[in-house]
Amino acid sequence: MNNFDFHNPTKILFGKGRIEHLNDHIPVDAKVLIIYGGGSAERTGVLEQVRTALSGRTLVEFGGIEPNPRYATTLNAVKVIVDNNITFLLAVGGGSVIDATKFIAMASLYVGDPWEILTAGTAKVTAAMPFGTVLTLPATGSEMNNGGVITNPEKIAKLPFRSPHCYPIFSVLDPELTYTLPARQIANGAADAFVHIIEQYLTYPSGAHVQDGFAESLLRTIIELGPKALETPEDYDIRASLMWTATLALNGLIGTGVPQDWASHMIGHEITALNDTDHARTLAVVLPSLLNDQRGHKHEKLLQYASNVWGITEGTDAVRIDAAIDATRAFFEQLGIKTRLSDYGIAAAEIELIVSALQEHGMTALGEHKDITPTDVRRILEASL
Amino acid sequence: MNNFDFHNPTKILFGKGRIEHLNDHIPVDAKVLIIYGGGSAERTGVLEQVRTALSGRTLVEFGGIEPNPRYATTLNAVKVIVDNNITFLLAVGGGSVIDATKFIAMASLYVGDPWEILTAGTAKVTAAMPFGTVLTLPATGSEMNNGGVITNPEKIAKLPFRSPHCYPIFSVLDPELTYTLPARQIANGAADAFVHIIEQYLTYPSGAHVQDGFAESLLRTIIELGPKALETPEDYDIRASLMWTATLALNGLIGTGVPQDWASHMIGHEITALNDTDHARTLAVVLPSLLNDQRGHKHEKLLQYASNVWGITEGTDAVRIDAAIDATRAFFEQLGIKTRLSDYGIAAAEIELIVSALQEHGMTALGEHKDITPTDVRRILEASL
Repeated sequence: MNNFDFHNPTKILFGKGRIEHLNDHIPVDAKVLIIYGGGSAERTGVLEQVRTALSGRTLVEFGGIEPNPRYATTLNAVKVIVDNNITFLLAVGGGSVIDATKFIAMASLYVGDPWEILTAGTAKVTAAMPFGTVLTLPATGSEMNNGGVITNPEKIAKLPFRSPHCYPIFSVLDPELTYTLPARQIANGAADAFVHIIEQYLTYPSGAHVQDGFAESLLRTIIELGPKALETPEDYDIRASLMWTATLALNGLIGTGVPQDWASHMIGHEITALNDTDHARTLAVVLPSLLNDQRGHKHEKLLQYASNVWGITEGTDAVRIDAAIDATRAFFEQLGIKTRLSDYGIAAAEIELIVSALQEHGMTALGEHKDITPTDVRRILEASL
Repeated sequence: MNNFDFHNPTKILFGKGRIEHLNDHIPVDAKVLIIYGGGSAERTGVLEQVRTALSGRTLVEFGGIEPNPRYATTLNAVKVIVDNNITFLLAVGGGSVIDATKFIAMASLYVGDPWEILTAGTAKVTAAMPFGTVLTLPATGSEMNNGGVITNPEKIAKLPFRSPHCYPIFSVLDPELTYTLPARQIANGAADAFVHIIEQYLTYPSGAHVQDGFAESLLRTIIELGPKALETPEDYDIRASLMWTATLALNGLIGTGVPQDWASHMIGHEITALNDTDHARTLAVVLPSLLNDQRGHKHEKLLQYASNVWGITEGTDAVRIDAAIDATRAFFEQLGIKTRLSDYGIAAAEIELIVSALQEHGMTALGEHKDITPTDVRRILEASL
């Protein structure tokens, strides 16, 4: 096991009706900006629940955060913060709204051009405005970590950030809020969380029994509950377990002290940039192909994954690894997520665009060994057509 | 799954050589009191490592915290704090030293008689002196939670406390520090962590897939690594995984949103109070007998435990439950821990003393259903002779 620091100060308020007590967790004298995305927050009534819980306070609202939150939009929010002397942010939404809120929290207190935060790193970020979240879509884990991704279409860039100042003060996780989500979003969330876990688990053995055991347990939970969550949308314990799984998939716990991959994410981001395919769906395309391509490097962990996650213990190493990769692909398909580039209208000719974009963004040495080159990516994508 | 709050702000500094960087985690202007136990901290060199890491600072030291830390000793430490204008505490030791440090941290800022903290609850505790820990013995989880136990022999009382002000600021977990621990302490630590997990897991089903999966994973890790840690004391990954397991066994994570038992602990505390038997050994005596006695209430979870922790899937329900309880007892014995009251010199006649002590301390309705009466405890203890 590698040395690690683990520190996650976010307070989780989990369960039914937790929005009602929101007021207790925001400083009495705070001037609050509620940040949300499209119309669903209004339509589902969650925004109204939040307003009711915070009634008596002066609230300012900022809607319109995009699914891949845009840099220009975050700057508009910063202007609202300055104009209204806001002192506390409340994100109401999924990973995109929370990611945007984190960036807004940094940018609103940043001395200098906020674009630096995305391009020069967060070393110069010494503070962020405090913020809480009300999670409406279990998927990204942003509600209990300190990172995010911001898109700048003008620069054709989707840029990640991370800062110790970006942990939410609190996050409200009410599984009942997910009952009305479209099946597509539940499926995407399950797939996203699944691949988050895989990126931190399926590399090479590092003697990390606890992290491996937790990762395998979370993967089995998603495999068991993901399809059930689609079949019976109002089964509380299923939605609750799936929501808590997605949070723990990327709150730092299973990734401490172990090698990490993240190549599927980096490649997937460029597919989304190309034709706006849902993030989770790009992962479901890339991952099975990448696992097959990297079966040499990942040999031991693929066998462990086959056995401990899928119960595959019969046959030669190659047979078991094939079976585990097939099971992974079949699981995504079972969730209603297609796993081929051609399913998303991407043909052989466009692979070069994806590879070039990766190169332009400096992503020329991916994976846990930093040895997946553009040539390797081309081959992985060709195999996923 | 029940509603829950989860908030654990302790920063974990895990791995080899982490003591070297201790200085970075304590405020520059802090006046530090190092709190430790017996001679082993000096003998093993860990105290010297700490002094070296903090060289240049004015340090005050307070040794002599007992294995079951005593109230009077903590008051002596408070006097040292007042006399020396101490502003930061550093616990160097195992669970007893850390528990004592937490109580000292509260008592040193408490307005009123500190005895109230143990008898009237921690509601009046509004602050505690900040403290960090250097863990030398993986067992109790105190390094990443907000509770502890203090003994007052004059009042024949072993009293637990818990306060949101009692999370360590940081805890250093260096697995190499455990290489020189006596086998007895490693075995006790493994058994203690094992039963901590069981107390939060082996109750009745509550739809908490994540918590169950994590608990089962940690149990399997202890079962696999506990004996190996005794055979090969300097295998880093084994010691590291066991250390991290013991921390996660009681940091709140697996206990959120689920029913909890803790009857074995309450009964075990009285056995320790009677004849000073090691805490972990009292648990190894009580647990198998309690599981057998409560097999009705715990029926479903016992079957789940049999299957998911021990791989026992053949036979009738009763056969599988018997096999799981037998395996539990055999595991303790494999660690070198005897599992019968008579092994610790306790005969039938003394059971009444244990039952009476429980009654005196108000422990008359134990377990996840609060329905284990003194009569039940008597029967459980008689079956464990």
